[in-house]
Amino acid sequence: MTSESEFITALRALATQPAARGLDDDCAVLEVGGETLVLTHDMMAAGTHFRPDADMADVAWKLVAVNLSDLAAKGAEPLGVLLGYSLGEGDDRFLAGLREILAAYDVPLLGGDTIRSIGTQTMGLTAIGRATHTPVPDRRGAQVGDGIYVTGTLGRAMLGFDGDPAHADAYNRPTPLLAEGRALAPQVSAMMDVSDGLLIDAFRMARASKHMFELDEAAIPVADNARRDECLRWGDDYQLLFTLPAGAMPAVPATHIGTVRQRADAVLTLSGTAIADPAGLGYQH
Amino acid sequence: MTSESEFITALRALATQPAARGLDDDCAVLEVGGETLVLTHDMMAAGTHFRPDADMADVAWKLVAVNLSDLAAKGAEPLGVLLGYSLGEGDDRFLAGLREILAAYDVPLLGGDTIRSIGTQTMGLTAIGRATHTPVPDRRGAQVGDGIYVTGTLGRAMLGFDGDPAHADAYNRPTPLLAEGRALAPQVSAMMDVSDGLLIDAFRMARASKHMFELDEAAIPVADNARRDECLRWGDDYQLLFTLPAGAMPAVPATHIGTVRQRADAVLTLSGTAIADPAGLGYQH
Repeated sequence: MTSESEFITALRALATQPAARGLDDDCAVLEVGGETLVLTHDMMAAGTHFRPDADMADVAWKLVAVNLSDLAAKGAEPLGVLLGYSLGEGDDRFLAGLREILAAYDVPLLGGDTIRSIGTQTMGLTAIGRATHTPVPDRRGAQVGDGIYVTGTLGRAMLGFDGDPAHADAYNRPTPLLAEGRALAPQVSAMMDVSDGLLIDAFRMARASKHMFELDEAAIPVADNARRDECLRWGDDYQLLFTLPAGAMPAVPATHIGTVRQRADAVLTLSGTAIADPAGLGYQH
Repeated sequence: MTSESEFITALRALATQPAARGLDDDCAVLEVGGETLVLTHDMMAAGTHFRPDADMADVAWKLVAVNLSDLAAKGAEPLGVLLGYSLGEGDDRFLAGLREILAAYDVPLLGGDTIRSIGTQTMGLTAIGRATHTPVPDRRGAQVGDGIYVTGTLGRAMLGFDGDPAHADAYNRPTPLLAEGRALAPQVSAMMDVSDGLLIDAFRMARASKHMFELDEAAIPVADNARRDECLRWGDDYQLLFTLPAGAMPAVPATHIGTVRQRADAVLTLSGTAIADPAGLGYQH
């Protein structure tokens, strides 16, 4: 088996069209006719991305939500989704959750494929969106001097996963921030969603932008101060991380958590301490 | 577990936009910015869609080819693909096959998702195309009196699967008939690719068009006359099945295999014999 990073490096060599954004962004961005399409595909597998005892309605919700969150990070309006689904336990619940989220965000199901397979249940979703602002926000666009912002509070999904009923929905039924992404798209120099953890995602944006992100740890809003470090490393919150030129005010509520600096030795610093190892920045879950 | 047909019926209730074509066609057809997009997604799983000892380069080829074949059946030009891939055995070979087919058809890789999962290896591909002719051919469009045609020879993939080296490529490396589909798109009243078997696919087109397909068994070109019946029921040939107004000549080589009639008792007849049970029309493989 190839390592995931080796495989992605090899894929990157095949993804040479500008539309692919070097596989370095949340979405592909494709000019068609007079419109700009925004395309994303995420996969989930039982045992890896959801617990075997999960309510499959939550799994369906999350599968759609994580893809819509990628569109949100590009300020795109969803046009529809294609579903790849292997039948298994809880298909009725999956359908119920799918129906709920498509209705909640008024997103049409356009097509896909249903298979009967042995073993691990797997599903994939492709979301197609229309850019509401061009150029479409890129995670490579942060400029030296920009402010770094994040929406919402980090760590709620972690607390929900750990059984806190007040945060259960944050983990099971994440909200794709579509309206927020559209409002921010014309302002931001760079934007992405926080899917894998604030530190790892900030590291990725800094690296893609070829600058250094200087974060102020105490400024980052977390759901549980006693578990601050975990809150910064846990993913699944689907908040928006973005950068704005100095002095600009974000169009939606968000917290200023740092500043973009010229790259020195580090890609990311947290309250002045350089953080070097990207593999250790995301909470392993 | 829900049955596959129950699941698809439930999905159909969610896919109410005209772009989804009632999940009854090979692709979704979406108008965006003066262009018409054609979208399809197919999934494959180890043990179900390919043999555990398959060369993963062939699996990659086939995953892309089956999706491009769906675009071919709509006369669409590919704009790119998104890949969902769970890492497993033979990842290097998968990359090699992917590189080959994307180069062969000059199709860009736009994005996707790579996961590490336990158990069954699964992969999905979304192909995005641009219609070269509108209205985009639909499998619901066959008219009474139309001639029914098929390209090529049926059963080659079956012989390749069974070990005949002369037909190995037909099974392992199917050819999406993109140029043929584009040439036919302006002419046809209905078109689809033969992925599951000629009889089942002709049945589906007849049912979708709400007419009866009268096929002349002896006219259907098969790769092995001694196994004629199996050739008509085996899939994986990815030939194009289409209907043309009486008297029209197909723009590419194809065989006239029957005539569209008003629906009587049967949906499909083969040399005068009504064939009633769609489940039995495709070879089980």
